[in-house]
Amino acid sequence: MRKILWTFIMAFALIFAINAQELANFMGASSAASPEINASNDSVTFRIPGNYATVVKLSGSWLRGTANPQPELQKGEGGIWSITLPLPEPEIYTYSFIVDGVSVNDAANIFVQRDGTRYLSVLLVPGERSENYSVANQRGNLERVWYDSPTIGINRAMMVYTPYGYRDRANSKKTYPVLYLLHGGGGDEEAWVSMGRACEILDNLIEKGMAEPMLCVMPNGNAGQQAARIHQIPERPFDRSDPAQANLYIHSLANDIIPYIESNYRVIARKSGRAVAGLSMGGGHTTAVTGNYPNLFDYICPLSSGMAESDEAKAQLQGIKKAGYKLYWIGVGDEDTRAYERSKELAGMLDSFDMEYTLYVTGGGHTWANWRNYLDTFATLLFK
Amino acid sequence: MRKILWTFIMAFALIFAINAQELANFMGASSAASPEINASNDSVTFRIPGNYATVVKLSGSWLRGTANPQPELQKGEGGIWSITLPLPEPEIYTYSFIVDGVSVNDAANIFVQRDGTRYLSVLLVPGERSENYSVANQRGNLERVWYDSPTIGINRAMMVYTPYGYRDRANSKKTYPVLYLLHGGGGDEEAWVSMGRACEILDNLIEKGMAEPMLCVMPNGNAGQQAARIHQIPERPFDRSDPAQANLYIHSLANDIIPYIESNYRVIARKSGRAVAGLSMGGGHTTAVTGNYPNLFDYICPLSSGMAESDEAKAQLQGIKKAGYKLYWIGVGDEDTRAYERSKELAGMLDSFDMEYTLYVTGGGHTWANWRNYLDTFATLLFK
Repeated sequence: MRKILWTFIMAFALIFAINAQELANFMGASSAASPEINASNDSVTFRIPGNYATVVKLSGSWLRGTANPQPELQKGEGGIWSITLPLPEPEIYTYSFIVDGVSVNDAANIFVQRDGTRYLSVLLVPGERSENYSVANQRGNLERVWYDSPTIGINRAMMVYTPYGYRDRANSKKTYPVLYLLHGGGGDEEAWVSMGRACEILDNLIEKGMAEPMLCVMPNGNAGQQAARIHQIPERPFDRSDPAQANLYIHSLANDIIPYIESNYRVIARKSGRAVAGLSMGGGHTTAVTGNYPNLFDYICPLSSGMAESDEAKAQLQGIKKAGYKLYWIGVGDEDTRAYERSKELAGMLDSFDMEYTLYVTGGGHTWANWRNYLDTFATLLFK
Repeated sequence: MRKILWTFIMAFALIFAINAQELANFMGASSAASPEINASNDSVTFRIPGNYATVVKLSGSWLRGTANPQPELQKGEGGIWSITLPLPEPEIYTYSFIVDGVSVNDAANIFVQRDGTRYLSVLLVPGERSENYSVANQRGNLERVWYDSPTIGINRAMMVYTPYGYRDRANSKKTYPVLYLLHGGGGDEEAWVSMGRACEILDNLIEKGMAEPMLCVMPNGNAGQQAARIHQIPERPFDRSDPAQANLYIHSLANDIIPYIESNYRVIARKSGRAVAGLSMGGGHTTAVTGNYPNLFDYICPLSSGMAESDEAKAQLQGIKKAGYKLYWIGVGDEDTRAYERSKELAGMLDSFDMEYTLYVTGGGHTWANWRNYLDTFATLLFK
């Protein structure tokens, strides 16, 4: 990652004939910078001005469960509070300050992710693990698309990523495969964009030739919502425990979303050109839509979810076997107790039917660190 | 606005057969809600939990310059600080809490705007003035597009709005006019989307039949940037006082951006199908691009900017007169001292050449309240 970044920066420096000092200036080095990964690359400093605050702590996602989960900052010159901590492993983390008991985002940090209704400051620690989470040199477009969902009875939003080159004149006859990428509970159509870094991951993998150029469609999986709550559109109550309601979304995926995409984008409108993946609730949507529509997808990736053993589940998996598929990829963290058990149950059922699959077990639990990693991994296996 | 909103909510209630209590629940009424416009519709309450805070104030954009610009909240039950203030005039405002001297966004409020590198909590007071700033029933798509700019020598981002219906099969042969909408200093390609509510304004005007369905292209006017800083792409130094650099962007608009849009979207690729408008620095870009390329745009709207009298300015305006145009619309606030003077200078030059124009003078200064209002006004005059 650093090598690519430096190559990129140096290319800039050459193109625009600027020197190292100018580079340092426009990279934003300043005494009030926060967060600042220090030159030694083994520590990170957080800073917040607060002349009248009494106690300022840092709450970081990587500190949870440690001996000192909310370390105190020290007040220094000019009323700037600061703390320097060991740099955590390469990954994306979120954090906030706690100023006299109130959670505060880092006003010096423009990198923010939205998790449902909360906005969180982000620390990206560069390294091999996170190298595909930063912006690539070749970037695909991202569109918020409003489409009618006759199945659900409302107009709804989804995000559609088109890969770099999609609009090149040279590719004007080319059709592309599509990954349908589904969020979990509490998420919305922007969850994979914001927390999941899906555009950056796909851009980087495609640029490196590690993934096929593909579209990525990220719908809203909450059938009671037209769109993410940022749009402030009234919602209808939705009862996931009511089977008729619970399945509305997966029917809309098959009958509203896929037809919309296939009539509006240059895509491969057949099973071999469709993949579906989803995390947690979206993993349930993945097993449900493939179980109910076994002829739609050749690539099936339920993440941090699995499937409880049942007669219905078995019948659905046999239907998938009969229809044929190219990849069944199950990702789960071994600390994600229930999902881990359910993933093993799903694997057991696949075993019993002699169906090929990958059970990709990582450390960790029900986290975006895992979901980004799963996308970064299974996306390289699609459409090949 | 309230009438439309209630019609919309009631339509929901009918469609989904839900009652008033359920409606109240899903509208999110709760004791910790913030901001809450009270039932009497003449006051608004802000709340923030903070058991250990000593002094909590509210800083609101509508309170600047008043006798008490940062009123103190009172601590109540459960450590919830609150304050109830008279409801300001219908408009969009931004605010933050100041907790023991530190500025804090409202964690209970998902409505956030980004102004450059700062994220701000938003209060939208509904009313006639702001009725087009909320989400419409018929919504256009919004795409982040990465395009090559040979003129500037980098790959760059712009936002492209396509109106509701653009993808309807019934409109598949229809071509649309395009508004090129330019931001000011400190802004980027998302400024009109976030602070300017451009999508909502155009959606609402088009839905009401008050504006022609049009595309809206919002490029990044900082020639040193590839994109908004949220993408964390290194920048090159840029000197606006160097004329060769200062004009790069307007040449890229004419030679890179317009050709890209006209070869990738179904648009009217002639002068009568192009409008350009911009605020402050973007107003300068508007007068510069129309002065340098008098055959490109029939609709010209410099906002909060104007043009200093000079031989070059006069020659450019005469060029525009010779080429012909349909609308020259100058918007400015009478408290925006310098821009007001410059707008009158521009109007004076137009007068001297017997060129038709509108000088739309409002109260207020160099503010997004004015720029939203100008867009809401001049957009109804375009392409007619």
